[in-house]
Amino acid sequence: MKPDVLLKAMFKAAVDAALPSLCVPAHLPPKPKGRTIVIGAGKASGAMAKALEDAWDGPLEGLVVTRYGYRVPTKRLEVVEAAHPVPDAAGREAAKRIFEMVQGLTEDDLVLCLISGGGSALLALPPEGLTLEDKQAVNKALLKSGATISEMNTVRKHLSAIKGGRLATAAYPARVVALMISDVPGDDPSIIASGPTVPDPSTNEDARRILAKYGIEVTAGMVAHLTDNDTETPKPGDKRFARVENIMIATPQASLEAAAEVARKEGVTPVILGDSIEGESRDVALVHAGIARQCKLRGQPEKPPCVLISGGETTITLKGKGKGGRNTEFLLALAIALDGLPGIYALAGDTDGIDGSEDNAGALIYPDTLQRAAKAGINAKAMLADNDPWTFFNAIGDLLVTGPTLTNVNDFRAVLIEK
Amino acid sequence: MKPDVLLKAMFKAAVDAALPSLCVPAHLPPKPKGRTIVIGAGKASGAMAKALEDAWDGPLEGLVVTRYGYRVPTKRLEVVEAAHPVPDAAGREAAKRIFEMVQGLTEDDLVLCLISGGGSALLALPPEGLTLEDKQAVNKALLKSGATISEMNTVRKHLSAIKGGRLATAAYPARVVALMISDVPGDDPSIIASGPTVPDPSTNEDARRILAKYGIEVTAGMVAHLTDNDTETPKPGDKRFARVENIMIATPQASLEAAAEVARKEGVTPVILGDSIEGESRDVALVHAGIARQCKLRGQPEKPPCVLISGGETTITLKGKGKGGRNTEFLLALAIALDGLPGIYALAGDTDGIDGSEDNAGALIYPDTLQRAAKAGINAKAMLADNDPWTFFNAIGDLLVTGPTLTNVNDFRAVLIEK
Repeated sequence: MKPDVLLKAMFKAAVDAALPSLCVPAHLPPKPKGRTIVIGAGKASGAMAKALEDAWDGPLEGLVVTRYGYRVPTKRLEVVEAAHPVPDAAGREAAKRIFEMVQGLTEDDLVLCLISGGGSALLALPPEGLTLEDKQAVNKALLKSGATISEMNTVRKHLSAIKGGRLATAAYPARVVALMISDVPGDDPSIIASGPTVPDPSTNEDARRILAKYGIEVTAGMVAHLTDNDTETPKPGDKRFARVENIMIATPQASLEAAAEVARKEGVTPVILGDSIEGESRDVALVHAGIARQCKLRGQPEKPPCVLISGGETTITLKGKGKGGRNTEFLLALAIALDGLPGIYALAGDTDGIDGSEDNAGALIYPDTLQRAAKAGINAKAMLADNDPWTFFNAIGDLLVTGPTLTNVNDFRAVLIEK
Repeated sequence: MKPDVLLKAMFKAAVDAALPSLCVPAHLPPKPKGRTIVIGAGKASGAMAKALEDAWDGPLEGLVVTRYGYRVPTKRLEVVEAAHPVPDAAGREAAKRIFEMVQGLTEDDLVLCLISGGGSALLALPPEGLTLEDKQAVNKALLKSGATISEMNTVRKHLSAIKGGRLATAAYPARVVALMISDVPGDDPSIIASGPTVPDPSTNEDARRILAKYGIEVTAGMVAHLTDNDTETPKPGDKRFARVENIMIATPQASLEAAAEVARKEGVTPVILGDSIEGESRDVALVHAGIARQCKLRGQPEKPPCVLISGGETTITLKGKGKGGRNTEFLLALAIALDGLPGIYALAGDTDGIDGSEDNAGALIYPDTLQRAAKAGINAKAMLADNDPWTFFNAIGDLLVTGPTLTNVNDFRAVLIEK
């Protein structure tokens, strides 16, 4: 296979491994004696609902909530849209209906819970005495405070009526099977959508302590909620979770492994650097360039032909006015850093099919990318400085366009080093 | 060995591998029949001169130029100090004397040239009709222009009377042995100190083309110089270079390999990511954290116990008012990203012994670094936001202090992942 063809095949394998149409049917439990209730939240949850009703041989009823624009046509399951990342009334209404839907079930019933990234905002259900606005204010203050991700999760779970395992215990004694697509580092099910079906070891007291530690203002309603023993989240060991199964049906790691397998079959050694690499896109690119150069010039950490593979979401601190996303920004910085080093190719793309604001999933670079751009009169460094990588790759015809995939296991990056 | 002891032993091995007192004597040529002239420029060149006169069994004369504050006491060789990174009159004067010193030699004579990082600024000798200020203006304009490193080097070599191989051809027919300590990616001898002893394939015409391409203003003197065939740099194949030998006596890669060997002997698998990793310190830290996490949780790209090793210089975009350098900034960001993940330790330090403005070479992190800081009432994230990592590590007693080493093969980073 030519290098660019191999990279595209790897990207396709990574996306395919996370497609609801393939991974939902592969993980379905047996039909229950009683009713099958389908609920769910997340950016992929509409496509998951579609995949489920296509594959399910039996009666189905239920409701999932997805992001505006992410709905797909379904026949038997209701899909509603709501706001992300800032929750809105539509999401709160859907969360309320979902919570009601799982109550009053019997042990003959099955709840299929379709969870994917973004579910936390889409499934926002403030407990009695709190408003969505209260929760948002606390969230914003936490983000600025220096609190760790784990501390923020503790607070979020204790200011919700549905998260931190409460959805699963509400469904008891029905059997609960949660099918999850992960977009979080470590694939911790208690973090994806703030773990509505996962027991929560943290306590109201922990949440109060964290809020106090960072001096975060709380309303009287929050204080009341966080000092009421009846509002505690269900804990590990709670026998109701014996009826709950959380299944990770797609993860960034599984997608990287699928891509690695494609490379391996072509005789190219895959080097998976990590499934949750973060950092400013252009700096992450510099590190990838440094490792690729080391492979090429020193045979470390791997001898060519090899391919560095990484997942996770990078970030962009916007300074310019151009067009593009994390993946094209990464690639343009990578091309500049590699400066035409022979035998190195790369692809970076968002597995959801849309990198930033335009209609491309990502792009590709070749050893002659800068040279071709220069011939076309394009100043690569100036375009990077203007955060304009889309325009760069569009001009030289190297955008990667797949259309929305309706799933998301974060970004996919592969840097191929030829012998 | 305990993890922190191992990391310190690795750092020591990395520095030792680059110490002039060890690597200069190991690469000395035989004594010549005639005179031995010693010249040189760079931050390590004072220490190299000292190591040379301690080891050389025979007459010696000469002059090297180093940065202000980097002189060491010598007996037979003269060491002068000049400004870096912006050249000053002291450097120009030294360069002029050095250039004169190598002229009129015979084939029985030996020129020992001691080159290290920083030599380009310290050995600034404008050709006739150009001033230091002219050169500086062009340099600044190039840095802003989007020109590649290779393009900038082409211009620099053609606006100098001593670079791009001219020093070596001036010494002809004497034998020339250049002992070089590399601090540049790829250890290209034509880049270290702009290659005073290395033939230059680029031409005056290339330099003119690059200046025009980026619309850089040039003086009439420059135009005259760059259109005069007599000012061309000596080319590969020029028979005078048959008398020249360039020896890389210390490199970032050799230092990383020395550290790797220490780890290997302790049963810890070294993974050398690259000898020239660049990027914003905190983002480079995020990528290292991602790879370390992948080792710990997935056994990829290497199974623990292993140690990720990288070299090269990161950068800091200052936003706060704190104290610190690239290495402590890297470590504080790394600790925050790892968030107490058990079994991961790290050391980062500048091989020159001084990380930034204070008197430490770097610091170490432990799995309980954040916890100990929190107990001491220190907010790690706030300190990172204020670019204040020195204060952070000083407060918890984890600075690494070695004193100036008088050599430099860039930064050394090691992230140890226990089983």
